[in-house]
Amino acid sequence: MKELRRISVIGIGLLGASITLSAKREMPSVRVVGYSHRADTRRKAREYGVAHEIADDLSGAVEQSDIVILATPIQTFAEYFRQVAPVLKAGCIVTDVGSTKTLPHRWAAKMLPKNIFYVGSHPIAGSEKRGLEFARDDLLTGARCIVTRTKKTDPVSSQQVEQFWKRLGCKVHSMTPAQHDRLFGMVSHLPHLTAVSLVNSCSAEDMKFAGKGFIDTTRIASGPANVWADILLTNPRNCVVGIDKLIKQLWAVKQAISKQDAKKIEKFLTQAAQKRAEMIQHKIDQNELF
Amino acid sequence: MKELRRISVIGIGLLGASITLSAKREMPSVRVVGYSHRADTRRKAREYGVAHEIADDLSGAVEQSDIVILATPIQTFAEYFRQVAPVLKAGCIVTDVGSTKTLPHRWAAKMLPKNIFYVGSHPIAGSEKRGLEFARDDLLTGARCIVTRTKKTDPVSSQQVEQFWKRLGCKVHSMTPAQHDRLFGMVSHLPHLTAVSLVNSCSAEDMKFAGKGFIDTTRIASGPANVWADILLTNPRNCVVGIDKLIKQLWAVKQAISKQDAKKIEKFLTQAAQKRAEMIQHKIDQNELF
Repeated sequence: MKELRRISVIGIGLLGASITLSAKREMPSVRVVGYSHRADTRRKAREYGVAHEIADDLSGAVEQSDIVILATPIQTFAEYFRQVAPVLKAGCIVTDVGSTKTLPHRWAAKMLPKNIFYVGSHPIAGSEKRGLEFARDDLLTGARCIVTRTKKTDPVSSQQVEQFWKRLGCKVHSMTPAQHDRLFGMVSHLPHLTAVSLVNSCSAEDMKFAGKGFIDTTRIASGPANVWADILLTNPRNCVVGIDKLIKQLWAVKQAISKQDAKKIEKFLTQAAQKRAEMIQHKIDQNELF
Repeated sequence: MKELRRISVIGIGLLGASITLSAKREMPSVRVVGYSHRADTRRKAREYGVAHEIADDLSGAVEQSDIVILATPIQTFAEYFRQVAPVLKAGCIVTDVGSTKTLPHRWAAKMLPKNIFYVGSHPIAGSEKRGLEFARDDLLTGARCIVTRTKKTDPVSSQQVEQFWKRLGCKVHSMTPAQHDRLFGMVSHLPHLTAVSLVNSCSAEDMKFAGKGFIDTTRIASGPANVWADILLTNPRNCVVGIDKLIKQLWAVKQAISKQDAKKIEKFLTQAAQKRAEMIQHKIDQNELF
C-alpha cells in the first residue's frame, strides 16, 4: 500500500469539510488540502480551519496529491476530471463522494489519463444541515461507504480507497457501479421520488390535516432540490425501473381495493409489515439503528 | 344540551379504553360502561379498572345509555347497529371512532330507528402499541377529532357529540362524511398505501442497504394489517382516486427523468419541499408538532 502524504478535497460543503476534518484527525502525517471555486467558501474554510491548506486555484489544490476526492455535484465531475487531468501527478488516485456511480466511472475512463487511477466512492453520511460550518470530524464514524470498481479499475488503488474510508471510520462495501446504482435506485432514489410525488398529489389545504404518518412518510421530500435533481438526472434508468415497480404495486392494490378483495389486501399489508420488521431487525443486529 | 348520565363504549382496545379512562376523569358524574365480546378483554378491563362497569353482554352494556360509542372494527358496525337498535332507549346518541365515515353513516341510517340519533366521530389518536393495557386517560388530550354529520343528522345530537369530545380534550372539526373520507383518503390512507407499496417494490436483500430515509418513508407500513384492511375496504373510491393521483405524479416525473428535463425535475422537487415546509410551519403555528 502506497504511503499517503497529501490528499485534496474539491468542494468543501458539509460532507467535503467533514472528510477534511476526519482526515486531519485520523491521519496526522497526511497534509489535507481543500478547494472550493467559491471565494466565500474558501474564506470560511480558512476561518473554521477545516484543512491544513485551502488552495486558491484548482491546480494548486490537486498537484502533488496522492488522493483527490471530488465532493461537488455529480454533474460537475466530467469537467473537473478534464481540468485536473493535466495537473495530477502520475499514480494519483481520483475518487468522489457522488450518490450515483455509473456516470462518474464512464467520465473518468474518458477524461483521465492511464496513469491516473479512478475509483468510485459513496459514503452514506449527511445531515439535514448544509454548509461547512456544520461539518464534523465524526460524521463518517460508523457510516457505510460503498466503493465501486469495474474490471478496468486498478485493484491496488481500489484497496487504497477502501483503506482510506476505513481509516475515517466507515464500514466499507465494494460493488460495481451498476450494482450500486440499481441498489440505491431502489432504496434511496425511489423513496425520494415517492415522498415528493405523494406531497405533490395532495393539496396544501388537505395537508393541514396531515398527521404524524404523512409527516414521516414525506420527510425526505424536504431535501435540497438541486442535490436531488443531480442524483435523479445521473441515475435515470434505475429511477425509471423503480417507478415502474412502484406503479405496478400501486396498480395491484388499487385493483384489490376496487374488487373488495379483503384477502389480497391483508396479504399485501402483512407482507410489507413483515419485510419491514425483518429490515429493522437486521439494522438492530448490525448496530445501525439508534 | 341533554345531561349525560351513562355512556357506553363497545370495544375496549387501546382507543376504546382510553375513552373510558378519559371520561371517568373528565366527567365524574357520568357512569362509564365498557363492553368487549371477548371474555379475556372484559377480565383485563376489570383488572385495570378502565370503566365503572364492564358489562357481560351487549344489551346490558347499552340499555339506558345516553351515548353509545363503537370502538370496534368499522366492518362490524352494521351488525352492532342491528343488535343494539331494539335495546337502546329513545333519544340515545350513537357514535363511533372509525377512521372512515361514509359507510357508518349509511349503515346507521338503515339499521337504527328514528328515535336514535347517529353522529360520526373520528378521534385522531392512537399509539404504536395495542391493547387496553396501554390505554391512557390523556391519549385524547389535544388530539383532533372530526365529527361528521349529514343533512339528516340531528343537530342537537351533533352538538352533544362535539361537546363530548371537547370535554375529553379534543380539538373538534365538523364536516360531512364525504368530505372526511376524501380528505383522509389523501392525507392518511394514500400515505399508508404508498409506504406499503414502496416496501413491496423492494427486495429484502436490497432493504439491508436502506438508510434513514427509507426507514422513515416506510414507517407506517408497519401498522396493523387488519386495522388498515378495514380502513381501505371501507373507503375504496377515495383510495382509488388517491392512487390515481399518485400514479399521475410518478408518471410525470418518470417522463421528466427519461427526457433529462432538469428544469422540470427541479420544479417538481422544489414544489414538494415548499409545500411540505408550509405544512410544517402550519403545524408549528397550531402547536401540533413536538
